[in-house]
Amino acid sequence: MNYYEESLKLHAAHHGKIEVISKVPVKTRDDLSLAYTPGVAEPCRAIHKNPADIYKYTSKGNLVAVVTDGSAVLGLGNIGAAAGLPVMEGKAILFKEFGGVDAFPICLNTQNTEEIIKIVQAIAPTFGGINLEDISAPRCFEIEERLIETLDIPVFHDDQHGTAIVVLAALKNALKVVGKDLKKIRLVVNGVGAAGVAVTKLLICYGLPATSIYLCDSRGVIYKGREALNATKEQLAEVTNIACHIGVDHPECRTGGLAEIVKGADVFIGVSQPRLVTPDMIRTMNKDPIIFAMANPEPEIMPDLAKSASAAIVATGRSDFPNQINNVLVFPGLFRGVLDAGIRRITAEIKIAAAEAVASYLPSLTAEAILPFPLDRGVAQAVATAVKKMKK
Amino acid sequence: MNYYEESLKLHAAHHGKIEVISKVPVKTRDDLSLAYTPGVAEPCRAIHKNPADIYKYTSKGNLVAVVTDGSAVLGLGNIGAAAGLPVMEGKAILFKEFGGVDAFPICLNTQNTEEIIKIVQAIAPTFGGINLEDISAPRCFEIEERLIETLDIPVFHDDQHGTAIVVLAALKNALKVVGKDLKKIRLVVNGVGAAGVAVTKLLICYGLPATSIYLCDSRGVIYKGREALNATKEQLAEVTNIACHIGVDHPECRTGGLAEIVKGADVFIGVSQPRLVTPDMIRTMNKDPIIFAMANPEPEIMPDLAKSASAAIVATGRSDFPNQINNVLVFPGLFRGVLDAGIRRITAEIKIAAAEAVASYLPSLTAEAILPFPLDRGVAQAVATAVKKMKK
Repeated sequence: MNYYEESLKLHAAHHGKIEVISKVPVKTRDDLSLAYTPGVAEPCRAIHKNPADIYKYTSKGNLVAVVTDGSAVLGLGNIGAAAGLPVMEGKAILFKEFGGVDAFPICLNTQNTEEIIKIVQAIAPTFGGINLEDISAPRCFEIEERLIETLDIPVFHDDQHGTAIVVLAALKNALKVVGKDLKKIRLVVNGVGAAGVAVTKLLICYGLPATSIYLCDSRGVIYKGREALNATKEQLAEVTNIACHIGVDHPECRTGGLAEIVKGADVFIGVSQPRLVTPDMIRTMNKDPIIFAMANPEPEIMPDLAKSASAAIVATGRSDFPNQINNVLVFPGLFRGVLDAGIRRITAEIKIAAAEAVASYLPSLTAEAILPFPLDRGVAQAVATAVKKMKK
Repeated sequence: MNYYEESLKLHAAHHGKIEVISKVPVKTRDDLSLAYTPGVAEPCRAIHKNPADIYKYTSKGNLVAVVTDGSAVLGLGNIGAAAGLPVMEGKAILFKEFGGVDAFPICLNTQNTEEIIKIVQAIAPTFGGINLEDISAPRCFEIEERLIETLDIPVFHDDQHGTAIVVLAALKNALKVVGKDLKKIRLVVNGVGAAGVAVTKLLICYGLPATSIYLCDSRGVIYKGREALNATKEQLAEVTNIACHIGVDHPECRTGGLAEIVKGADVFIGVSQPRLVTPDMIRTMNKDPIIFAMANPEPEIMPDLAKSASAAIVATGRSDFPNQINNVLVFPGLFRGVLDAGIRRITAEIKIAAAEAVASYLPSLTAEAILPFPLDRGVAQAVATAVKKMKK
């Protein structure tokens, strides 16, 4: 199937993918008097009197805003908020389909950090949670942090944490399949955008030794004191490629480009650009290399090519290959859990609990099945259950 | 039925009234590849290349934002955005039920005019239209005007124009029932908020002589040179109670409070406060007085009381009495029409066309049936058809 062509037809046939329907009857005069005026005055008064009642009398508690500024849409880059709407609608229907969460796209006609923060703060009353989507780094970090600080509902940048959670789950299982120990691997994260940063941070939180993580941007591996480091990269230079802190002559301190840094590595995690990885690069890696090539819509290396270069396990972001690292394994269940439990902050512990729920979902693992099938409805349920248990 | 108590139960039973569902299947791997990644990249690229394609490939063309700042919710006043959410959800389901329009509540945590304008401009990409709701006067006028000027989608403050359109329809039919001529009546509008101003302006646009309209606020009738006139009232003082322009001694120039000004009037239109009108006041009106008492949730005078004082026709905003002046007769069909026709500005001509569609909907009129039943699905269709014909 030609996905692009067929997708265009599907979108045109339905004029988009979402609709907003009623949960209550609106057929009789009495229906109207209860759902609208005069009856509706009473829930309004109740909420005015006791603000927490908004969760009781409105849809807020099950409504998530999918907010974007269109600055980093899929692998398409900064195509703007309007052109990003098909992705946000897609996200919304996945929320509903897998998590029973009502989600609505909010595409913002601004890419100004302060404006985005103000707008999301202003529209928050309608929503029980905010899913930030496809906002480019490093603005996404500040936007998310400031919103988490100021709002009383959970805020989650899915490109960061959704990806990080699925990667952690996939890594756990891939290491099991090849029989390697998390504490003894060397791992390269290529791409220091939203996903790369969050993946690195979550792996560190999970217990991966900071000496074993190497983070690359387009200039090569990041180390303390390297040129062209922004604030985020400087922070990560403190906790990755850590031998460099001692001195650049230390044998474990790595410099150089991607081709050099993958030599001897056990795991390559790509959240970067299509076709950056060659079969030759994979051949220089340690035995049974694990390749997560998640560039969208084209991976860093196609699975067949990676396999031909002796990759033991290959995962991509695509639904047309096995081992899909798809955030749909996480965000519907995660939000289902936090909304049901009334959790206001999605902490690292909650993210790890979600990753473990995904990782332990499959009864048996193979190189072609390190993750559940994204359409398996049971995953969201397992994640939601694990998340709810984290309520303190 | 105790509407307040039952409404509270209904809202609690369902946790609000809206949900967001998918229009496309999300069951198989192929479904996911078309509705989401990788296929979804193609409609994104198409819109990026040709911005007008957003109407083709997304839900924008059928999505209306119901935007409030909670400053004038029903008759409850400034209860804030969160407490207004039940009303906005109610509005959204009426949009869907009667017009097939997908509508979504946006409750804004700010009552600053400039901020509201900026926020609505920023969230506009998702929506095909903006329905402003329950924003207090005079801020609502500037907000609406500025948004109409700057956005390329229709913007409609329903409290103003929805009300004005239904009132015009009701007035046309009420005058038919009592056999009076629009050009020869004297009419009092009590309340110079959003609705009062819009009703007055639309009646003038429709051809009601400016000498015959008297507009009252809490200080009594408005006339040129009166104290305590804001910009809007000053503007309306130019076109109502017009004899005052000649000089306060002119016999047709009226001053004084509501009780004085209704003397001899044919029509009372109340968009003000509960219980402001007494039976004695109605007894001083001209023969066969027409009373539209639309204060919410309690009218200016209860219908039975008005009838006992010889009112010929009484209409209210309530669904539990006959002749309900309910905006649901207008906004679903009006938006259906403008969205279908791609109309970007809702002009006075379009409003009059909508009013005429509502007025001419009933084959025969009585004092108890000057307007169609709000639940009659055919009304929205008739309004939409009339509106679509106005496309130039």
